[in-house]
Amino acid sequence: KEEEELRQRFMAPPVSGLRELRRRRRELRSRMELLIMETQGEVCRALAALDPGASFVVDTWERKEGGGGISCVLQDGEVFEKAGVNVSVVSGLLSEEAARQMRSRGKSLKAKDGKLPFCAMGVSSVIHPKNPHVPTMHFNYRYFEIEEADGTKQWWFGGGTDLTPTYLNEEDAVHFHKTLKEACDKHDLKLYPKYKKWCDDYFYIKHRGERRGIGGIFFDDMDSPSKEEVFQFVKSCAKAVVPCYIPIVKRHCHDSFTPEEKLWQQLRRGRYVEFNLVYDRGTKFGLLTPGSRIESILMSLPLTARWEYMHAPPESSKEAEILEVLRNPKDWVH
Amino acid sequence: KEEEELRQRFMAPPVSGLRELRRRRRELRSRMELLIMETQGEVCRALAALDPGASFVVDTWERKEGGGGISCVLQDGEVFEKAGVNVSVVSGLLSEEAARQMRSRGKSLKAKDGKLPFCAMGVSSVIHPKNPHVPTMHFNYRYFEIEEADGTKQWWFGGGTDLTPTYLNEEDAVHFHKTLKEACDKHDLKLYPKYKKWCDDYFYIKHRGERRGIGGIFFDDMDSPSKEEVFQFVKSCAKAVVPCYIPIVKRHCHDSFTPEEKLWQQLRRGRYVEFNLVYDRGTKFGLLTPGSRIESILMSLPLTARWEYMHAPPESSKEAEILEVLRNPKDWVH
Repeated sequence: KEEEELRQRFMAPPVSGLRELRRRRRELRSRMELLIMETQGEVCRALAALDPGASFVVDTWERKEGGGGISCVLQDGEVFEKAGVNVSVVSGLLSEEAARQMRSRGKSLKAKDGKLPFCAMGVSSVIHPKNPHVPTMHFNYRYFEIEEADGTKQWWFGGGTDLTPTYLNEEDAVHFHKTLKEACDKHDLKLYPKYKKWCDDYFYIKHRGERRGIGGIFFDDMDSPSKEEVFQFVKSCAKAVVPCYIPIVKRHCHDSFTPEEKLWQQLRRGRYVEFNLVYDRGTKFGLLTPGSRIESILMSLPLTARWEYMHAPPESSKEAEILEVLRNPKDWVH
Repeated sequence: KEEEELRQRFMAPPVSGLRELRRRRRELRSRMELLIMETQGEVCRALAALDPGASFVVDTWERKEGGGGISCVLQDGEVFEKAGVNVSVVSGLLSEEAARQMRSRGKSLKAKDGKLPFCAMGVSSVIHPKNPHVPTMHFNYRYFEIEEADGTKQWWFGGGTDLTPTYLNEEDAVHFHKTLKEACDKHDLKLYPKYKKWCDDYFYIKHRGERRGIGGIFFDDMDSPSKEEVFQFVKSCAKAVVPCYIPIVKRHCHDSFTPEEKLWQQLRRGRYVEFNLVYDRGTKFGLLTPGSRIESILMSLPLTARWEYMHAPPESSKEAEILEVLRNPKDWVH
């Protein structure tokens, strides 16, 4: 009965199998896999409810080196241009080079014969709406385990949720950040300010001097105070995705817009592509990893994008207003 | 009188000044700068003649660290979606890290205080036509000088011309490659086969298992048999750009096309963006170089691009035909 219930909440059977997850239900790996499956289901259902004409295509895939994933993609809907929610649970052996790429602060890892047994799992999602008044949203929550030569297991969590509007809407920005702050504050009051700043720093398109969006939270290498406490924090963040974003979509998905506003959205989509292909560590890591599923990694790219030579919006325009915030991130909650 | 003539052939006054170039006319640096200016003028005039409604915007820019450039861009014309021809002549001090990035085969360079005086110049161009039956073309010819700590000057040339069609047209492919082969064969029969292969290897989108296009020629680090001979070879290649490409544009710019063909073009444009942002050494180097002109570097990106999740053309379609050639490069001249 419990299994039946889970089956209905998930988009597909979990990579590790329900029976196996049940058997090892006390292990953090299993609890995290259930959490990412549940998050995928929750988000997909919430999005599908807003775009009744369209539906998610669900692909399950296996990685021959170990593990697999479930990709859910809704394309060319009424509300969403492209929405992808991806789960992956992979394991195997990592080269030292790849292990170094994985860990952002470069803790050294001692390998046996240059190879490290690892397990990586996560849920990641990018939602690109059609209407330029509905922002793009991205989130990702992930867990890693690496076993060193002497048998010590390193583990850490990473993740974040961030918003990329085409036009600035202060009310939306405040709602988004406040919802994230509440999720963080339940665990430690220091987390939101620290991870808000990390987010602004991470999603920086250096060659443009702009952030990708108006931020949110971002963290990596989180391995304290304890596995259990970090897991509870990640759970709160994952549960905050729907209340962060869905009210904003509902508020604006029927807003009218002009062809000029659509054009500006397309140019901003171009910047999104620049960030993801040039800077994003997850994307780079994915493109480098043998056997990774390219279509799931590049699912984050928008359906359409545009690059104009020397485009610059007029002063005091709505386009200049968002650029200003992308150049100088604001504090949205104080 | 001679100066007047040059002025008419160039798109703008050269970065080093006509008087200075005249004074130092025996030096290879000056002859190369005149060649890249002439190439820019030739190509821009040939393109503008095919797209009479549109015209090139000419921007001259200075680099505060030394040198500058001239960017010519035609956007949203009848025939060309975006055509850019860029000249840059920059000099200054290079970090060892940047110097390493510059040299593809990683010859070691000994710096004084970690800095190397350098001079880099080149002409580079990407032409994206509107009609999916007209291929995208790219070329780049460049010259570098670096002075090591002990005063030795290293110099080398690099460059290439390559074609990226949306659909395969054998006649065009043969014409393009034959014209390049003729330019190479005048200098050394070994050059075309070697540089054709280098081109297929370089423009490889590893994560897709596809080349960006049907190739052409590509070379880097060319520093033998002699400065003069390599310059003459580069000159032949630069002079071949117009005869390589313009006949193909003329042949197809009035071809009719379907919305489905336009869509496939947009998906291929997406791959073009992937190559340029993820793999292209020139783009990466440019984005890393402080003071480089981002708008000129990213001029190579198409006006519009598209990414669809899991797009795969039907077997034996025209779309599958070009993919086959991108996966398994062909010999076009034997």
